[in-house]
Amino acid sequence: MKTIGFIGVGIMGKSMVRNLMKAGFTLHIYARTRAKVEDVIDEGALFYEDIGSCVEDCDAVITIVGYPEDVEEVYLAEGNIFERARAGAYCIDMTTSSPNLAKQLYAKGKALGLHVLDAPVTGGDVGAKNGTLSILVGGEEEDFKACLPLFKAMGTNIQYEGKAGNGQHTKMVNQIMIAANLSGVCEALSYARKKELDLDAVLAAVSSGAAGSRQLELLGSKILAGDLNPGFFVKHFVKDMRLAAEEAEESGLKLDILLQVLKHYQALETDGWGDLGTQALIKHYEE
Amino acid sequence: MKTIGFIGVGIMGKSMVRNLMKAGFTLHIYARTRAKVEDVIDEGALFYEDIGSCVEDCDAVITIVGYPEDVEEVYLAEGNIFERARAGAYCIDMTTSSPNLAKQLYAKGKALGLHVLDAPVTGGDVGAKNGTLSILVGGEEEDFKACLPLFKAMGTNIQYEGKAGNGQHTKMVNQIMIAANLSGVCEALSYARKKELDLDAVLAAVSSGAAGSRQLELLGSKILAGDLNPGFFVKHFVKDMRLAAEEAEESGLKLDILLQVLKHYQALETDGWGDLGTQALIKHYEE
Repeated sequence: MKTIGFIGVGIMGKSMVRNLMKAGFTLHIYARTRAKVEDVIDEGALFYEDIGSCVEDCDAVITIVGYPEDVEEVYLAEGNIFERARAGAYCIDMTTSSPNLAKQLYAKGKALGLHVLDAPVTGGDVGAKNGTLSILVGGEEEDFKACLPLFKAMGTNIQYEGKAGNGQHTKMVNQIMIAANLSGVCEALSYARKKELDLDAVLAAVSSGAAGSRQLELLGSKILAGDLNPGFFVKHFVKDMRLAAEEAEESGLKLDILLQVLKHYQALETDGWGDLGTQALIKHYEE
Repeated sequence: MKTIGFIGVGIMGKSMVRNLMKAGFTLHIYARTRAKVEDVIDEGALFYEDIGSCVEDCDAVITIVGYPEDVEEVYLAEGNIFERARAGAYCIDMTTSSPNLAKQLYAKGKALGLHVLDAPVTGGDVGAKNGTLSILVGGEEEDFKACLPLFKAMGTNIQYEGKAGNGQHTKMVNQIMIAANLSGVCEALSYARKKELDLDAVLAAVSSGAAGSRQLELLGSKILAGDLNPGFFVKHFVKDMRLAAEEAEESGLKLDILLQVLKHYQALETDGWGDLGTQALIKHYEE
């Protein structure tokens, strides 16, 4: 495996492209606006003006775009990946997207002789930059194994989760926990602030104990500093939670906490805060 | 400071008594049923048949009982601590209890010449046993400093949180986060189970990333194994969350997630599961 087509060269995508080139792969990239990816072109990525040309000679195609609709578009629209990728190519969708869509793409790809994997990630922009992403993979196990060199260029915690769709399901598990944990952080810190506690002393007391969480580590001090800049966007988290809620409902599960947190975030988005970081949930409690 | 009266020699209390004796303190203990504390009597604790006699010659008194009503009883009822402790003694309530009650006890104690601290703990039975509790202390700072040798015998993360009641407020902060985090664990694992994922692979994928939490570490595998034995009782967690919810409401804060989780736990208690461990919340999602 030598040549990779990469669709979705955003903040995370750019870091992933760089790490793949560093590992020796040749990168074909597509972007709607060439000016936004000049830096990685300068570093050696080959630019294409349409998705079909970008992917047609590649051994593998990686996609990491915004919403399930975008995933559908890049794979299924006329002239795009499923029309132009060569038989035997690996198609890896790393977008956090619908498990059902992942299953459909797997089946359609298989009929075309393509090896489709769903491989959403966790670890955010920092993990992408440092090549320390967690990568949650669903699909055929031998396809997973064939793509390991590529995954290892981008991540450190690379997990095979079973059949097509299971990478996405595992990501849903992850987001369900984050939704609750981050709510807990916001509720607890708004309590601490309201009771006029010494916030540094409170964090020192609780961070390392039974209340500790990665969300508290990552976002607790940002919340206290009033820094709502995005590590992870409110609008993307809304998408993830919506997918998880739909999937849960489809299975007859009522995840009350997830639904409540989703409501809070949807209200934030409606109020125009979709481009803030997820820690903006504190606004629900303090405004 | 040499002699300590200890009220509340339960599972945690016993470990704390042992660690205090190990550090060289002389322990006077009281328990309703002598038979239940014979082991620590054998190890050197001096047994008293009533609270007043237990505490009257002590330099410090430690209490760790069940509910705020029990705290009121041991401090304020006829013949108990505030009547019999000698002037200048330190009175340290380590129960998770009401911040308002802590403030009242501080004021009443002060009028009697007693040094009252609220010092709830986190770290559970294991932390108590290993002397690695977190201890969250409210009251006068010089009283806190005077009691440090005693705290250090029982814990490792010892934090002064400010005026009387602030130890309890900090514990509320801790419990608010735990309530959300544990809900997230239960919702996410019930989703994973319903979607028939490989649960070990899921835990491997999500535990070390952004969804990670101490609750997941402590209770995730217990939940998957169906082990609902108590580390921390449902009934005590209900008490803590109820206190936190009352305090929040008093300050005009609406902590939706906390209130929802509290409802789930109250339903468990009503169904007769108060003596299970807090991970029994999984029943809400799977039964």
